[in-house]
Amino acid sequence: MNASQPPLIGRLCVIGVGLIGGSLALALKAAGAVGEVVGVGRGVDNLQTAQRLGVVDRFTTDATIGVADADLIFLATPILALGDVMRQIAPHLKPGAIVTDGGSVKRAVVDAIEPFLPAGVHFVPGHPIAGTEKSGAEAAFATLYHNRRCILTPTTHTDAAALALVRQMWQIAGSEVVEMEVEKHDRVLAAISHLPHMVAYSLVNAVGAYDRYEENILEYSAGGFRDFTRIASSDPTMWRDIALTNREALLEMMTQYERFFAELKQDIDSGDGQKLLAFFQKSKQSRDAIL
Amino acid sequence: MNASQPPLIGRLCVIGVGLIGGSLALALKAAGAVGEVVGVGRGVDNLQTAQRLGVVDRFTTDATIGVADADLIFLATPILALGDVMRQIAPHLKPGAIVTDGGSVKRAVVDAIEPFLPAGVHFVPGHPIAGTEKSGAEAAFATLYHNRRCILTPTTHTDAAALALVRQMWQIAGSEVVEMEVEKHDRVLAAISHLPHMVAYSLVNAVGAYDRYEENILEYSAGGFRDFTRIASSDPTMWRDIALTNREALLEMMTQYERFFAELKQDIDSGDGQKLLAFFQKSKQSRDAIL
Repeated sequence: MNASQPPLIGRLCVIGVGLIGGSLALALKAAGAVGEVVGVGRGVDNLQTAQRLGVVDRFTTDATIGVADADLIFLATPILALGDVMRQIAPHLKPGAIVTDGGSVKRAVVDAIEPFLPAGVHFVPGHPIAGTEKSGAEAAFATLYHNRRCILTPTTHTDAAALALVRQMWQIAGSEVVEMEVEKHDRVLAAISHLPHMVAYSLVNAVGAYDRYEENILEYSAGGFRDFTRIASSDPTMWRDIALTNREALLEMMTQYERFFAELKQDIDSGDGQKLLAFFQKSKQSRDAIL
Repeated sequence: MNASQPPLIGRLCVIGVGLIGGSLALALKAAGAVGEVVGVGRGVDNLQTAQRLGVVDRFTTDATIGVADADLIFLATPILALGDVMRQIAPHLKPGAIVTDGGSVKRAVVDAIEPFLPAGVHFVPGHPIAGTEKSGAEAAFATLYHNRRCILTPTTHTDAAALALVRQMWQIAGSEVVEMEVEKHDRVLAAISHLPHMVAYSLVNAVGAYDRYEENILEYSAGGFRDFTRIASSDPTMWRDIALTNREALLEMMTQYERFFAELKQDIDSGDGQKLLAFFQKSKQSRDAIL
């Protein structure tokens, strides 16, 4: 960036200063693409940490104060909290402000936000496909979005100039931006993210509960199991909201998955080596094909 | 090692020169703990690669020749091939030779090998808990077993001196050696390794087959999904044999897992946020506790 030019975003307000919101702030700061970052949240400890780590320049627990004169508002709270936040901040947004989000389910977010948009304020639904199992401002880092995809799901109400700015913002943060229709986003994410998380959570709970011989099985868990179940320690509230708001697409994928798992179990039960080999080969081919 | 002392193992014969067998050979060579390594396999290309990479010093496709005068024979073929290999090599083993293996299921291996042991030849059932999704001699590397656990499952027939030598061998390769009863090993591994693999294979197949809207869903798979399904590209033949030979313990774990997954699905279907939160929190606690 040319230091004599104004930054892309004068004032950024991040509501929910955790891994997702904090990392965006750090990425934009590192690129000189933001003038000031205001953090909003409920936990003062976390906000103080965010300020100490340079994630935000100042903070407030009052969202209506935090959004004052903000050019861009990034909503990074759990999905089910977004509607309330939007209702609360709507009267305090400046004309021309752009609201965007990082929610993992887009239909529910669009429905929760668009009805409350004041005239002259724009909303761009977004979803950066990045994350770790950690949460809180302390987990944020400037390169989280490097070489990741960010999906934007504009609707018929989305302003073209606001969309272009949000696209540019994510590119500056290091992401490849793709656009996708809202419903397609929710189906794709149900398959490649939401289902795998449900599978991992179930796996850890099933193995953890298996104590038939008091063998402390988890104690033996090797590298593979640990890597495999890493995502099962992701933020429970965030995943409750995802499961509830992408219910239909997720249930469809879970049913699809259950059929495959049951087929595999049947082949093991009947000792069908041919079918087992075919099942494992097919999986290996799919997996190898995406790399 | 003191260069003036003879190595722990004079001649090592590795039957099945892939990731597991090849990496043991490289680890022992790196430590100066082996005099000569003879590789045995069916694929000449792979054996030539192994020799070129210094994994083995020489090779043969004839196991009866390969085991001649070997002090230690490491069986690293898929489990269902072990019985045939043992029958074939038994008459050619020198008195005092030690046979050990790296199979992921121990009851089936013990039953396949112990009946064919000639007098004066010892068998130590073993299972190094290590691996990657890659296979073949090219995938082998000397540090695969560093800081990994190796489980030995001696039976009432296991010779104490042979057990001590195999223990020492794995320690030299960098592993922490633990002993476990055969049936316990198979239950623990069903839970922490075999079940997770079945889950991953099913997940990749379910997502890969979900093409209802021709959306090329796998194309969007992000870091999380890739990590999660990495193990679904492990060697299909090896996993067929594991599924068939640890059938009972694996089916029990699969049934346990199905119950948890069905419970989760039910909670999503009924929109029970409290139960979902509890489910995800419990998983996070279990997972965090093992780290």
